[in-house]
Amino acid sequence: MILPRTGIGLDVHAYASEDQPRPLWLGGLFWEGERGLAGHSDGDPVAHAAADALFSAAGIGDLGTHFGTDRPEFAGASGITLLKEAARIVRAAGFEIGNVAVQFVANRPKFGPRRLESQDVLSAAAEAAVSVTATTSDGLGFTGRGEGISAIATALVYPKQPDRIG
Amino acid sequence: MILPRTGIGLDVHAYASEDQPRPLWLGGLFWEGERGLAGHSDGDPVAHAAADALFSAAGIGDLGTHFGTDRPEFAGASGITLLKEAARIVRAAGFEIGNVAVQFVANRPKFGPRRLESQDVLSAAAEAAVSVTATTSDGLGFTGRGEGISAIATALVYPKQPDRIG
Amino acid sequence: MILPRTGIGLDVHAYASEDQPRPLWLGGLFWEGERGLAGHSDGDPVAHAAADALFSAAGIGDLGTHFGTDRPEFAGASGITLLKEAARIVRAAGFEIGNVAVQFVANRPKFGPRRLESQDVLSAAAEAAVSVTATTSDGLGFTGRGEGISAIATALVYPKQPDRIG
Repeated sequence: MILPRTGIGLDVHAYASEDQPRPLWLGGLFWEGERGLAGHSDGDPVAHAAADALFSAAGIGDLGTHFGTDRPEFAGASGITLLKEAARIVRAAGFEIGNVAVQFVANRPKFGPRRLESQDVLSAAAEAAVSVTATTSDGLGFTGRGEGISAIATALVYPKQPDRIG
Repeated sequence: MILPRTGIGLDVHAYASEDQPRPLWLGGLFWEGERGLAGHSDGDPVAHAAADALFSAAGIGDLGTHFGTDRPEFAGASGITLLKEAARIVRAAGFEIGNVAVQFVANRPKFGPRRLESQDVLSAAAEAAVSVTATTSDGLGFTGRGEGISAIATALVYPKQPDRIG
Repeated sequence: MILPRTGIGLDVHAYASEDQPRPLWLGGLFWEGERGLAGHSDGDPVAHAAADALFSAAGIGDLGTHFGTDRPEFAGASGITLLKEAARIVRAAGFEIGNVAVQFVANRPKFGPRRLESQDVLSAAAEAAVSVTATTSDGLGFTGRGEGISAIATALVYPKQPDRIG
């Protein structure tokens, strides 16, 4: 019997200062006209939380472990690129990916009309089902004050079965 | 082999202003003498997070997708009503529900004595096991300052097996 | 078929005041030279969140249910002691433990070099795989301001199969 393993990933990015505006990337999508998030990469907390949940489920570290200063080729990489590489690493470590579910917390943008588009982009990157949902924190905390966006993800992975011999 | 899918749901409601007091509904229960939460519905973050986790696991959107302005009959509906309808929608989309686990973060009310009652009400609504737990944020953040209550939930759902033919 | 149950656990501890310094225990490890967290116990939010996620998955309450004033022998117990006892209680309630995944949110300490050590200590306590990861909240909220550390965990447990007779 193959037992799944659960993982969790949280990611937060502050909005970029108005002096140094940046584009908003969220859920693997570019959001025209929206204020962007700070970060070395595109600052996409949805993609980052999804990648961290995969690493967490596999028990092989986190974004810092895999995309830290040892791998300068990922400095500034997009969230989608990081998620794709995270899924590759998790599979190379001996796991199949069940699914990933991410929810982000933000006052905006209005996510509903582009939810399926976001899920398609993230699922293609992970080569597994990624669901994305959105909520607000009802005006409370840093998300409520519009200081940043947080995202939280869970993932299920499965150890690959050993080859059967004979 | 049937593989489960994981989902996640977060919900936050601010306390109602003292000028416009409301009853507190939390975990499907009415809490006499406790300050209520704001919201169009009863503002029950436990029931809302549970519903959102089910939608997330099934990959079919969130509370906004299913109970938005398109379905005015759910405006003002109780958290229990929303959870019951969410479970129905998830099953209609082809999933069985494994379980839902919710934890809320608040300074009060004292939850322990009514935990089983809350679990019974929510489990009856979802027609599946719903566990509910409580914690505080040790005086920190908006929950610590008593500005609102947050709840976070995970859920497992299972795709229904296809009919076997022949 | 054995179906897993998912659980969730969140724990937050504020830093101890500088007037009453305490050692930092985090992820089952002592961190020399780091500012400690307040709390009756060692205040280890990683171990506490892991224990709460196990209770949540089993649907048998939370830290307050099991380590409250009824069991004074656990007043001041270490996070590792609480996690070990939580795992024992969950197994005694009829469940096997699949895995636990915890992520903490803090500006420091630098976790990467001791991640495997932390996972070993926590996994030994739970007698099951516990993964631990770390992130920051990008300077936002109470973790960003350095007021405390939060940890969030998910867990999977499995009802034990009934004995087969005959």
